Amino acid sequence: MTAAWSMRLRACLFDVFGTVVDWRTSVSRDLAAFAADKGLAGVDWLEFSVEWRKLYQPSMEDVRAGRRPWTILDVLHRESLDKLVARYGIRGLDEADLDHLNRAWHRLDPWPDVVAGLMRLKRKYVIAPCSNGNIALMVNLAKRAGLPWDCILGAETARAYKPMPEAYLAACRQLGLPPASVMMVAAHNADLRAARAQGLATAFVPRPAEHGPGQRTDLAPDPEVDVPAADFVDLAARLGC
Amino acid sequence: MTAAWSMRLRACLFDVFGTVVDWRTSVSRDLAAFAADKGLAGVDWLEFSVEWRKLYQPSMEDVRAGRRPWTILDVLHRESLDKLVARYGIRGLDEADLDHLNRAWHRLDPWPDVVAGLMRLKRKYVIAPCSNGNIALMVNLAKRAGLPWDCILGAETARAYKPMPEAYLAACRQLGLPPASVMMVAAHNADLRAARAQGLATAFVPRPAEHGPGQRTDLAPDPEVDVPAADFVDLAARLGC
Repeated sequence: MTAAWSMRLRACLFDVFGTVVDWRTSVSRDLAAFAADKGLAGVDWLEFSVEWRKLYQPSMEDVRAGRRPWTILDVLHRESLDKLVARYGIRGLDEADLDHLNRAWHRLDPWPDVVAGLMRLKRKYVIAPCSNGNIALMVNLAKRAGLPWDCILGAETARAYKPMPEAYLAACRQLGLPPASVMMVAAHNADLRAARAQGLATAFVPRPAEHGPGQRTDLAPDPEVDVPAADFVDLAARLGC
Repeated sequence: MTAAWSMRLRACLFDVFGTVVDWRTSVSRDLAAFAADKGLAGVDWLEFSVEWRKLYQPSMEDVRAGRRPWTILDVLHRESLDKLVARYGIRGLDEADLDHLNRAWHRLDPWPDVVAGLMRLKRKYVIAPCSNGNIALMVNLAKRAGLPWDCILGAETARAYKPMPEAYLAACRQLGLPPASVMMVAAHNADLRAARAQGLATAFVPRPAEHGPGQRTDLAPDPEVDVPAADFVDLAARLGC
C-alpha cells in the first residue's frame, strides 16, 4: 500500500460474471435441473451454457457501435437463448419457461471467498459491481448470494457496455470520485486494461476454473496490474482491511 | 395484507429527505459545528438550513421543464448554497469549505426507527431509495448511517426528478418489476400521489418533526394510501416481515 493510488483509494468496482460468480457451473446446473423437472432429455446443458455465453460479447456489439439503442443484458440474453433453443431444436417451452431459463443469470453462485472478502472490503471502501449485467439481474443475484454491495453500478447506470470508456467513467462520476480513487477488480486482463486506460487502479483475482478444467486465458495478471491478489480475502488484506 | 397489491409486492422504494433522514436537524448541526470551528459568528444556521431547503424544489424546476440538461442534486445544492452565502454576506469560505458544507447533505442522521425497520423489510423485499438525491449522496449517507439498501435508485438512475412519472417508472423498470409489485414509502402525500398515479402501491409514515415544532403539513396520510404506518418498524410488521 505504498503506491500512488493507495492513499486516495475510496471505492472498489467489481466485474461480476467470472470474477464474483461461477456462471458456468451455476447456469448449467440451473438449466439441467429445469430440464429434468420438465422431462427434457438429450441436451448437454454444460455445452448449451457455454454456447450461450459465447453469444454474450457479440450480442452487445450493435449497442456498443451505436447501431442499436441502449438495451439491457436481460433482453440480449433472451435473444441469445431464443437462438440457441431453435438451434438445439428444443420444443415445448412456453413464455414462462423461457423467462425462467433466462433468469438463470439472476441465480449465480459466488466463488467461496467472495462474501467474506466483500464484507471486509466494505468496512473501508465503497463496493459496487461494474458489470454488463443490468440492475435487476445484479440486485437479484446479490440478494440470493448475500453480496453486500453499497450500490449497483455498471452498464445500465452508464448506458454503455464495458469495455467502452463510459462504462468505467460513469461509475466513478456517479460515486463522485476521480478515477484515480477507484479500483477495478476483475479476473480478466482485458477488462482491467480498459479500466486502466481511463485512470482507474486495478486488481487481478485469478479464476482459473471460470471456463472449466482446460482454461488457458487469464491465468495470471498483466504486469501493469496494481494489485495481484489470490482471491477476495487476500485482496481485502492487501488493501488494508 | 389482503389488498390487491399484497400478494404481488416485491420491492419497497423510499423517499429519503424527511422520510428516512432528519435533514433539518442534521444539516443545521453540521453547519453550526463547521462555523464554530471556523470562528464564523452571527448566522442562525437552523434558519440558513431551512432557507437552503426552500431553494430545493425551485432548483429542480428547470431540469423538470427540460430547460436545462440533466443535472444532479449535488450541483443544484451547491448553486443554492452559493446564493445563500452571498445573501447572508458570509465571507472567508474557500472552495474546500464550500464543498464540505455542500456535503452536509451526505451526512444526515436517520430517524431512530429506520435502520431496524429496513433490516426487517430487506429480508422479504428489495429495498431501495427513490430520492431526488444523486447516487454519491445516497451512497455516502447510507454508508454513514448503516442503511442496508439493496441498490440505489432514484433521480440519477432515472434522469428525472420526482414527481415526474419517469422517476417512479424508471425505478420499477430497473428492478424488472411492474409498478403494481412496488410500494412507494414516504412522509409526503404529494410524493405518494405521484407514485400512485403510476400504479405503485403506497405507504405513509408520519414525520411530524421534519419541519420542526410548528409543522402543519403531512401530519396524516391521504385516505387513498394503501398502508398507513406509525414508523418503519410498524411498516415492516404490516408488510409481514
